[in-house]
Amino acid sequence: MKTIHGGVTAPIGFKANGLFCGIKRSKRKDLALIVSEKQCDAAGVFTTNQVQASCVVINKEHLRDHKAQAIIANSGNANCMTGESGFENSRAMNLAVSRALKIKKKDVLVASTGVIGKPLPIKKIVGAVPELIKGLSRKGSEAAAAGILTTDRLNKEIAIEFKVGKRRVRIGAIAKGAGMIHPKMALYPPKASAGPRHATMLCFVTTDAVVTIAALRDALDRAVVKTFNTITIDGDMSTNDMVVVLANGMAQNKKIVEKTKEFRLFSRALETLFGVLAKQMIRDAEGATKFVEISVKHAQSKEDAANVARSVARSSLVKCALFGSDPNWGRIAAAAGYADAHVDPWKLQIALGPEIVLRNGGRVKKKAAVLNRIFAHKNIRITVDLGLGKYGATATTCDFSTNYVRINSAYRT
Amino acid sequence: MKTIHGGVTAPIGFKANGLFCGIKRSKRKDLALIVSEKQCDAAGVFTTNQVQASCVVINKEHLRDHKAQAIIANSGNANCMTGESGFENSRAMNLAVSRALKIKKKDVLVASTGVIGKPLPIKKIVGAVPELIKGLSRKGSEAAAAGILTTDRLNKEIAIEFKVGKRRVRIGAIAKGAGMIHPKMALYPPKASAGPRHATMLCFVTTDAVVTIAALRDALDRAVVKTFNTITIDGDMSTNDMVVVLANGMAQNKKIVEKTKEFRLFSRALETLFGVLAKQMIRDAEGATKFVEISVKHAQSKEDAANVARSVARSSLVKCALFGSDPNWGRIAAAAGYADAHVDPWKLQIALGPEIVLRNGGRVKKKAAVLNRIFAHKNIRITVDLGLGKYGATATTCDFSTNYVRINSAYRT
Repeated sequence: MKTIHGGVTAPIGFKANGLFCGIKRSKRKDLALIVSEKQCDAAGVFTTNQVQASCVVINKEHLRDHKAQAIIANSGNANCMTGESGFENSRAMNLAVSRALKIKKKDVLVASTGVIGKPLPIKKIVGAVPELIKGLSRKGSEAAAAGILTTDRLNKEIAIEFKVGKRRVRIGAIAKGAGMIHPKMALYPPKASAGPRHATMLCFVTTDAVVTIAALRDALDRAVVKTFNTITIDGDMSTNDMVVVLANGMAQNKKIVEKTKEFRLFSRALETLFGVLAKQMIRDAEGATKFVEISVKHAQSKEDAANVARSVARSSLVKCALFGSDPNWGRIAAAAGYADAHVDPWKLQIALGPEIVLRNGGRVKKKAAVLNRIFAHKNIRITVDLGLGKYGATATTCDFSTNYVRINSAYRT
Repeated sequence: MKTIHGGVTAPIGFKANGLFCGIKRSKRKDLALIVSEKQCDAAGVFTTNQVQASCVVINKEHLRDHKAQAIIANSGNANCMTGESGFENSRAMNLAVSRALKIKKKDVLVASTGVIGKPLPIKKIVGAVPELIKGLSRKGSEAAAAGILTTDRLNKEIAIEFKVGKRRVRIGAIAKGAGMIHPKMALYPPKASAGPRHATMLCFVTTDAVVTIAALRDALDRAVVKTFNTITIDGDMSTNDMVVVLANGMAQNKKIVEKTKEFRLFSRALETLFGVLAKQMIRDAEGATKFVEISVKHAQSKEDAANVARSVARSSLVKCALFGSDPNWGRIAAAAGYADAHVDPWKLQIALGPEIVLRNGGRVKKKAAVLNRIFAHKNIRITVDLGLGKYGATATTCDFSTNYVRINSAYRT
């Protein structure tokens, strides 16, 4: 498995483009398009927020047949809580692309990200579609990646290549997300047995692999649960989160089916890709100065482990302490204690980096200078050992800075 | 019912004091004592965090007989996650008071608030007990109120008087809490049927009323659920939260029993008192510049209403928007949508002050100047109407300021 250039246009048969159509006052790119030469097998996971943008509702409908060929996405406006006209506008985006490309309406997916509740400037978007299509290119991933950013400072783009049998297969992706990040996305249509799991974060994935729908959905679900669904920036779950994968089969590999070596490889590739993008989101998070991993060990269940990890990762007090490089681990203990999980304070063990600071219900005395140095790092690992069972989980987060507050106190103005 | 002076020493038979014993580097008062002339009937609610300070664990044990006579509390150190020696130190505080006052150990309650995980300077506390007792006075409430503060800027103290039959009855209270405030306290011992409900917040209540234990516990539980358990400053539930009521019966009124007019009056008095103190906590919250009430209407259940109110009140993005006076109501919709409650975006209605901004799934256009003015106020009411049922709830919170982050990024240093 190796990293390659090209993002979403690295796989065979995909083109992309991005441009400024007039939504953002900054005049940065605000529209993106990804198109496959052929109709693709497709799968998606979507926010489990009950307030969902029209694009989410429409894509869920369009993915019922597990087919898609193009994705159009705008940034700077979430087109959410915009009433019936919001739905009309999402459909108008869809229609503009499907007509111009002469593909089915249901094969066009739509995504939006930005301010909630503001009417989408649909004429600007529709008016820009011809130019957007004209500019589609095998080198267009970078422009598309720029077209979906909001408060992100950096493009998030990656592609990898690996072999399935003798054939080379590629997966590429672009993503965005720097605030309103606390994803809990679930497959749609749902799996028979699946309950809901846990930004606006968007991630569009392309692959030229030949893969069954079932395998594609399963790999997507597993990878999202282990990566995007474990990050939090501010604890606020978005109305517009989605990860969509398009597989056009042009690599002509032996079809990947579940429970095979090839499936495990494909799953691992997807998880690797998502892991890198999820980390990029945290590193580029609004106002963030630190990258923090909360590793929970020895929980009574997977859910307990994940709940404790997210509870600590979401705690405003823990995040402020991280910003201030103040190794105030008592806040970590408190956030573990109020998580929806079994916690026994006498068995709880907390380590900052390699230094155990809490054991047997009380502190393990360490030199203040040692702990201060660990918390002064840009990369911090916190380990919370519950000492109760055999399950683990990791959550990834950032600190909470005065700059985060500044950015979000004047997001619209 | 009328407000009177005197705080916890307004009721007959109570004395109090507060002083600096050496815990706080600021040299502000850090130790408080409240004592009744007679043994009291007593009831308490405590944090439901699974990580609990030794004082919480010990008080729960001491309240099993529903009796108490004194409360000693220190600030500047939470004596939590301090191992066995933490328990020994809480017991040493207890013992110093019980010996000097010649009352039973189990009639002395102990409370601590401050940094978690740091050994309590017990010698300073025990050494100060004689002076603390010597200074006990019928005018000592103010000193005691000061002795329990941490990041609070203001004393929180109140007393009221009302008539039960022909007798005047008084209730007084002191409280603290400005950060790590997201209480979910529950009665201990628990009621047979009660599940857990939802700082360090401390509140000590005195009354000279004659009241049955059952009525006292019931009134306390109802009042806490409607007041303290509805506020949030930062979403972090403390390890040390407690509200304790001591009733010495010295008003000699006709005994207050449940389901009577007198009980309703007593309940209302307690709720009024707690309501005022809870609001004082929000107004004095770390870094806060706004006082915000989230009123939820027409939920399918009481729990749904409370969950939506708290979800909006806890949202970092909503709180940053409030700080910036940016009426970005889309964030309110998103936070309602991810609450653990039934929410239908098409029935959801949101009002900022008197201005409805969301109805029928889309915005109700208002002049930006009008909404900006509402959000520029120091007092803001947000109404979230779910349009689904007949239940309501209110949560009270503050904004999230750059100052909050500053205070909490260097709390210990």
